[in-house]
Amino acid sequence: MNLNESLKKLRGLEYKNLYNNDFFLTWDKTQDELSAIFAVADALRSLRDNNISPKIFDSGLGISLFRDNSTRTRFSFASACNMLGLEVQDLDEGKSQIAHGETVKETANMISFMADVIGIRDDMYIGKGHTYQVNVAKYVEEGHKDGVLAQRPTIVNLQCDIDHPTQTMADMLHIIHEFGGVENLKGKKIAMTWAYSPSYGKPLSVPQGVIALMTRFGMDVALAHPEGYEVMSEVEEVARKHAVQYGGKFTRTNSMEEAFKDADIVYPKSWASFAAMEERTNLYGEGKFDDIKKLEKKLLKQNADYTDWACTEEMMKLTKDGKALYMHCLPADITGVSCETGEVDASVFDRYRIPLYKEASFKPYIIAAMIFLQKVKDPAETLQTILNRSQVRLFK
Amino acid sequence: MNLNESLKKLRGLEYKNLYNNDFFLTWDKTQDELSAIFAVADALRSLRDNNISPKIFDSGLGISLFRDNSTRTRFSFASACNMLGLEVQDLDEGKSQIAHGETVKETANMISFMADVIGIRDDMYIGKGHTYQVNVAKYVEEGHKDGVLAQRPTIVNLQCDIDHPTQTMADMLHIIHEFGGVENLKGKKIAMTWAYSPSYGKPLSVPQGVIALMTRFGMDVALAHPEGYEVMSEVEEVARKHAVQYGGKFTRTNSMEEAFKDADIVYPKSWASFAAMEERTNLYGEGKFDDIKKLEKKLLKQNADYTDWACTEEMMKLTKDGKALYMHCLPADITGVSCETGEVDASVFDRYRIPLYKEASFKPYIIAAMIFLQKVKDPAETLQTILNRSQVRLFK
Amino acid sequence: MNLNESLKKLRGLEYKNLYNNDFFLTWDKTQDELSAIFAVADALRSLRDNNISPKIFDSGLGISLFRDNSTRTRFSFASACNMLGLEVQDLDEGKSQIAHGETVKETANMISFMADVIGIRDDMYIGKGHTYQVNVAKYVEEGHKDGVLAQRPTIVNLQCDIDHPTQTMADMLHIIHEFGGVENLKGKKIAMTWAYSPSYGKPLSVPQGVIALMTRFGMDVALAHPEGYEVMSEVEEVARKHAVQYGGKFTRTNSMEEAFKDADIVYPKSWASFAAMEERTNLYGEGKFDDIKKLEKKLLKQNADYTDWACTEEMMKLTKDGKALYMHCLPADITGVSCETGEVDASVFDRYRIPLYKEASFKPYIIAAMIFLQKVKDPAETLQTILNRSQVRLFK
Repeated sequence: MNLNESLKKLRGLEYKNLYNNDFFLTWDKTQDELSAIFAVADALRSLRDNNISPKIFDSGLGISLFRDNSTRTRFSFASACNMLGLEVQDLDEGKSQIAHGETVKETANMISFMADVIGIRDDMYIGKGHTYQVNVAKYVEEGHKDGVLAQRPTIVNLQCDIDHPTQTMADMLHIIHEFGGVENLKGKKIAMTWAYSPSYGKPLSVPQGVIALMTRFGMDVALAHPEGYEVMSEVEEVARKHAVQYGGKFTRTNSMEEAFKDADIVYPKSWASFAAMEERTNLYGEGKFDDIKKLEKKLLKQNADYTDWACTEEMMKLTKDGKALYMHCLPADITGVSCETGEVDASVFDRYRIPLYKEASFKPYIIAAMIFLQKVKDPAETLQTILNRSQVRLFK
Repeated sequence: MNLNESLKKLRGLEYKNLYNNDFFLTWDKTQDELSAIFAVADALRSLRDNNISPKIFDSGLGISLFRDNSTRTRFSFASACNMLGLEVQDLDEGKSQIAHGETVKETANMISFMADVIGIRDDMYIGKGHTYQVNVAKYVEEGHKDGVLAQRPTIVNLQCDIDHPTQTMADMLHIIHEFGGVENLKGKKIAMTWAYSPSYGKPLSVPQGVIALMTRFGMDVALAHPEGYEVMSEVEEVARKHAVQYGGKFTRTNSMEEAFKDADIVYPKSWASFAAMEERTNLYGEGKFDDIKKLEKKLLKQNADYTDWACTEEMMKLTKDGKALYMHCLPADITGVSCETGEVDASVFDRYRIPLYKEASFKPYIIAAMIFLQKVKDPAETLQTILNRSQVRLFK
Repeated sequence: MNLNESLKKLRGLEYKNLYNNDFFLTWDKTQDELSAIFAVADALRSLRDNNISPKIFDSGLGISLFRDNSTRTRFSFASACNMLGLEVQDLDEGKSQIAHGETVKETANMISFMADVIGIRDDMYIGKGHTYQVNVAKYVEEGHKDGVLAQRPTIVNLQCDIDHPTQTMADMLHIIHEFGGVENLKGKKIAMTWAYSPSYGKPLSVPQGVIALMTRFGMDVALAHPEGYEVMSEVEEVARKHAVQYGGKFTRTNSMEEAFKDADIVYPKSWASFAAMEERTNLYGEGKFDDIKKLEKKLLKQNADYTDWACTEEMMKLTKDGKALYMHCLPADITGVSCETGEVDASVFDRYRIPLYKEASFKPYIIAAMIFLQKVKDPAETLQTILNRSQVRLFK
């Protein structure tokens, strides 16, 4: 088993700042820290595949705080918690009276008496989601210092308005496995492109997270979208900085063709423009619901101008040997299947179904690795002990 | 403790095909396989009654995929999973966007990264429920073969349009215990009869499941219903075949009295006719909601012609010594209690309350036994080890 | 660690009647029994704070049966169950068809096949909540005797119409810790006072529970409320009796100032009058929904006459050295924060935020202690064994 390999990698890295800390944005973390998460994710997968339980908690709660519904993310988080021995308790808006300000502080403490980790998904409003997560972290930190909470639950960002680290880290681990190691990524071209979808207002966190993360591995990252679909300029700045720092490349274009040209990897998906989302957030804040409806109509109309931004068989031919790795965070809008005109041709999607499902399969392990590294003081030692004790997961 | 007896029974049986397989319909399984499930159910109950934990999973998920609400089934499945060490994650329509076709394949994989078992209840539409379950099984089988899923979750049918195996197997185990062993069932008469209920469209899976299963134990199975309340002819065919094969008897009558006459067991409950349910399913498919309302009215009116189909004290007198075992899958429509005119007299129901609750109590153990036999390679050996280690469930 | 101290306390107490019994009302229990709960709560906290798992269940279910929503209580119960090794299954009205009479008996059994404990919250209607809990207990007791249930789940009252024992016991343990021991409470004055809130119909269980419990520890309990906001006279009677029996004092006044005067502890919160709640319950029973609306309007108008009943800085100055311990069951209606005019000044609330959160932090441990003492035959011996085995909660 390649657990020994993962362990060896881990022993060479400096990642002690992950301990007792939160995971908000990939660019808060050092290269070694991200590598440690990949190594532990691989190690956990390898343990489980060999029917060895990586359970480190005998009891404890993992709290999922979702400000919008998501089956996939909910199951990924539940899977990660279960693997490590935490029971999940869901806190959703319907069940609680959580809100902003005063109430956040109180609720954060009230739900955390036995909480080891809190997974938060809050991606709806620009400028709110990340801030909310940081606040929850601050309040439970205070609660722990003040003697209210016996342990300090750490935060895992399960998607915010700025980044979607559990998705992009899973994407990256998938790429690493597909290309046979991080050392093979130097100079590989990835096209992160906008694609048409008949729906409206998909979050920006995936494209933003991808350009910020993939530029750290020496890759040639091409961001493409129609005019008016710009992402947050701060995150573009991060991508630009990373490209320089890590010897990669970051370009932006308004041509999908240009991005697809000779790409090793393509990641075409729909998103709303940052400016439009900002406008919507402001309108919500002002309670102008009629104006929001008008905005939505305008944006859907704007979308319809770009139905040709689709990952068709024609477009795929432009990529490296016509065989770029197609990626998506799922669910995709598949032309003729889930909608009339969408992000991707059915034949393309179908050809990449297995790699797409594998891409998704890394997410529970990425989340579990984040929790593991946040809660365990000496991860390499602990993994070694887990391997030595070899407690079976399924007794048979 | 009679665990040794169960173990002895188990060792004499051939049931290896249950391993890594699904449970859809009782008639997919051999006599030995059903006997193995009964033996393991008894063994698990005996272990738990003696405060010995039968836990075989250290972690892992049991997913409940319910396409309609059900407190009882949900708790039975949760109890079975918990007993074996699996944490339950509910996937209900409200929380997910699961649908037919393309999406089923994707969702089946997305929820199964850590899933050991999926319990599915989908009994609403004729010709759909069973097919849906088979498809989910096919998709996770593919997911496992393609390397997406580390383990292949197996399916337990928690009720479909054709069969309700966890109910009828619990019913059968109850009968075995009440009559002191399967060897005493030869020639015993069971009346599976329709009964009036003021509600509409109760599933056919219970009467169908009962006639298909009880004919395998040498019993004399009498199916009775008014004209127009026929069950699926394919399942009647199965019952007829079983009666011949296993030395039992299967008759059909339009007289409740005839069925009750000298019966050792009576199982009176309401159901909708197969033809009507098929019509409703087609109307749904065509989106003809006005016609569905008309159909409902027609069916309720038709029901009202048969209010005399009730398990009254008078009717009970017709049975063997007036003391037939009264059975029901619960909840029953009790005349004067839960409705004005229903399936059963309050005094009859009340006299059989304890056996009725006991009947229900077997269900968690039947479900747990199915999971146990699906996931454990050498069940007899594993049960022996569980007995030897004698880990207490409640430490006190 | 002070676990040894708790154990020593426990060994001197007589509390065997808690075993296999329910917790409905604090005044059903002896002084020793309440002290045992405090001692075990402290012991469990001390174990967990030292990363020693107090898990006593290897598997089993804790059922939460909430007849109205509550994030805080739900999380407290889930935390308590998780700490001891029970998995929580929620049964809420939406998911089930539970109702009164016949159905309660059946559902109580159907959800309890693997249940070790049932936590019930039913505080909405006067004269109903407590009765409901007693009935559930009776039905599962019967189920166990009749051989339906392998174990007899015990009941924990998570709030009823009469008492809120998990809240008031947590409050009391907080007081004990703040004042350095139960021996220091003799003669200490606690003001349980009504306070204005813009909302309507808050339950009476907290003030009732507080006057009945705090009078047992030699404290000087002053109940204050405007005319028309009387609590149940039966509970006042209990408080009066306790004051005599345990050498405390119980007074009732219509002046908030009088109650606050020289108080060591103040507990100002809103509630509806018993008479009004009784009227509402009757109107519900008769289905007179228009009259209920009229009643609500009348009561809100009545409330508005007493906006000056608030825990202001001015009022706090009346207390002992101006420094009484401010208590609340949370969430509080904070003037200028969660409402325009409420129960407490923002500056007062803010000064006591940490003690308030600590007060709440005792609740999971109180619930866990109740479960522990209900399910474990020899608690002191078991705690000693838990300490000896020293199984880590988080393996790191």
